[in-house]
Amino acid sequence: MHNAKPLPTYLVQRFQGWKATSYAENSAWYRRLASEGQHPRAMIISCCDSRVHVTSIFGADTGEFFIHRNIANLVPPYKPDGQQHGTSAAVEYAVTALKVAHVIVMGHSSCGGVKGCLDMCSGNAPQLEEKSSFVGRWMDILRPGYDRVVERKPDDMARALEKESVLVSLENLMTFPFVRAAVESQDLSIHGLWHDIGSGSLECYDPKANGYVVV
Amino acid sequence: MHNAKPLPTYLVQRFQGWKATSYAENSAWYRRLASEGQHPRAMIISCCDSRVHVTSIFGADTGEFFIHRNIANLVPPYKPDGQQHGTSAAVEYAVTALKVAHVIVMGHSSCGGVKGCLDMCSGNAPQLEEKSSFVGRWMDILRPGYDRVVERKPDDMARALEKESVLVSLENLMTFPFVRAAVESQDLSIHGLWHDIGSGSLECYDPKANGYVVV
Amino acid sequence: MHNAKPLPTYLVQRFQGWKATSYAENSAWYRRLASEGQHPRAMIISCCDSRVHVTSIFGADTGEFFIHRNIANLVPPYKPDGQQHGTSAAVEYAVTALKVAHVIVMGHSSCGGVKGCLDMCSGNAPQLEEKSSFVGRWMDILRPGYDRVVERKPDDMARALEKESVLVSLENLMTFPFVRAAVESQDLSIHGLWHDIGSGSLECYDPKANGYVVV
Amino acid sequence: MHNAKPLPTYLVQRFQGWKATSYAENSAWYRRLASEGQHPRAMIISCCDSRVHVTSIFGADTGEFFIHRNIANLVPPYKPDGQQHGTSAAVEYAVTALKVAHVIVMGHSSCGGVKGCLDMCSGNAPQLEEKSSFVGRWMDILRPGYDRVVERKPDDMARALEKESVLVSLENLMTFPFVRAAVESQDLSIHGLWHDIGSGSLECYDPKANGYVVV
Repeated sequence: MHNAKPLPTYLVQRFQGWKATSYAENSAWYRRLASEGQHPRAMIISCCDSRVHVTSIFGADTGEFFIHRNIANLVPPYKPDGQQHGTSAAVEYAVTALKVAHVIVMGHSSCGGVKGCLDMCSGNAPQLEEKSSFVGRWMDILRPGYDRVVERKPDDMARALEKESVLVSLENLMTFPFVRAAVESQDLSIHGLWHDIGSGSLECYDPKANGYVVV
Repeated sequence: MHNAKPLPTYLVQRFQGWKATSYAENSAWYRRLASEGQHPRAMIISCCDSRVHVTSIFGADTGEFFIHRNIANLVPPYKPDGQQHGTSAAVEYAVTALKVAHVIVMGHSSCGGVKGCLDMCSGNAPQLEEKSSFVGRWMDILRPGYDRVVERKPDDMARALEKESVLVSLENLMTFPFVRAAVESQDLSIHGLWHDIGSGSLECYDPKANGYVVV
Repeated sequence: MHNAKPLPTYLVQRFQGWKATSYAENSAWYRRLASEGQHPRAMIISCCDSRVHVTSIFGADTGEFFIHRNIANLVPPYKPDGQQHGTSAAVEYAVTALKVAHVIVMGHSSCGGVKGCLDMCSGNAPQLEEKSSFVGRWMDILRPGYDRVVERKPDDMARALEKESVLVSLENLMTFPFVRAAVESQDLSIHGLWHDIGSGSLECYDPKANGYVVV
Repeated sequence: MHNAKPLPTYLVQRFQGWKATSYAENSAWYRRLASEGQHPRAMIISCCDSRVHVTSIFGADTGEFFIHRNIANLVPPYKPDGQQHGTSAAVEYAVTALKVAHVIVMGHSSCGGVKGCLDMCSGNAPQLEEKSSFVGRWMDILRPGYDRVVERKPDDMARALEKESVLVSLENLMTFPFVRAAVESQDLSIHGLWHDIGSGSLECYDPKANGYVVV
């Protein structure tokens, strides 16, 4: 692996700052986490987007959240075909090995992945339809959500589809036998959130209202 | 989606705290990020493990890092077969759409995924060999790394394989044509790190030394 | 321009060192900054003093801060008279063209400019009163601050006036219509800091306390 | 001053990192700088642009450089009219009070201020011609430079004018009697640089060649 480069200096400085402050103040806790292993309370599935860090929004302490981040916070349907499914592996590990009490899926405004799906499904992004487009094939997971928002006014569709990305993931989560079993035995609860970057607001899906309510 | 539950109260409280402090103090910045979109400098690929948050270690400001987190910070080889590859989609989006300047892969100590791979490859975890094991199939990506550490002393193997998980990912990254092209044109640099949870130390892969050096 | 001399050798050497390390490791980022332009998050107005570099104190990455430095970190009142106002031009560019989210004014201990103002206002520096004194005329901006500290004990006056230099600048900033509009629409926030060189401490102005609090 | 906000959290963290590392390792030096005052070797006049920090490029140690930063690194002509001239005040303080040995003016590629001047002088930015435009009036300083590049090919003009911004500043510096005297007595030397952000290269004005040479 001869292409790797040293860590950029600005990150070295920041790491040294963290080491001298946050780590130094909590080294006993870090050592205990290292020796005892992790016992996170919740799994959070959110987007890779640089503007949305659940560790900030929820003041995440080290050891609390098992966090999977992918494009558009999607969970594919259960499909044990022997192929590589990174998201399914993360869900399996969180629910069956770590036995988290919550799985939280969080979408957000201005999501580039959802925007791509919208363009693709409405015929405006033929390049995303190509077999070789990893983003396009990944966003196929959200196609069922598109069918549910296609009647909306054009201005409302992106936001509606962002919120559908959460619901599609929650629905797909329930297709995993070990998730369904844990939910039904009340060992696990699942939650759907949507975050607005600009206003800082957070909305939670409420099945009774069949919609999102502001937290 | 009738199974979703409200957000747990402890997270509601933390969100309200974030809203009243970090968000309130930086609302201008959040609004600008919402309207202008993201321009992250780096993509970071790290593990879902709850004890390792790069946002803390590198004091990540909102908007700086595009973060993909999966089990054992793995990147699969390039395989444009029309199937769903979440990690490949994230890499494609970061490099071709966001044009990040760095892709940083960070492994860590006490990695449960790597431990599972070690058990599986050494014949001690037959359940992970099953076709239906998402974790097992995901950890197949690391099998080439196992072959390189199998001669090690038993006590050293887990750590060695954690470090291999980074190198295998860097190698696989280079099989993506758009990654290779960007690295060769010097528009992108790739970096490999390994973090020790208990001691708080950070090591960076140095191709000249063919090993890791402490940052 | 026949008077210019070559770059001193010690600076040539340092530049070559930077080129071979920081630049080489981050060339992808520098090239992207060159092609995409700057999107700084904050404008910082600080003193020219060689002992106070906000780039160090805040670990400034390239591209993060738009930095204006003048004597005593002063902002003059809004005065669109067609004359040359370098500070006003910098504020105008940062707020209206770059749309920064923060303007941070930082003063510091042992400020020579503030000391000159104190001497001038207390009648001990007649040369600074002269029309031809650029420093004296520049420090006129701080005269309203002098009136607010004149009752202090002599030993406390310099420090008090340094802190006033920040507040006068914040007040003057709000006389610019485009600054006031951006603050009122919450697209911009303004911040006042004072840094102690010897102890390394940093204080932030808190309007509720009507004073500075240690960060 | 009731509008000021607390320091953004990400800067608090970075400051704490600096305090615990750079400051802690050098506290004796910082205390000495505080008690003895500054004795910088050089004054540097550079642009506010967030992509160009001379503190990085020249590995500036605390106490070495007295740095003035304004839009497009401009020095206006000597004009002791009793008005506020922030740049002239900085030059006066550096040369007559601090008695620096060098004044270095550094321009750079992709300069937004120079671009504005080019647009204004070629009739494409009428808003910059208005009396109320602080940026426009500030860039008037560079008009004599425009006349010297107007015959260039359109693609070359921006870069040529960036380099002229340095020469105009050096010429204007020499109109200050105390600068001219110090240069003529060889107590002061002046230097002109131009930095290319993307390639990281640095060029120095050479009066013998009447042009810039790569450092």
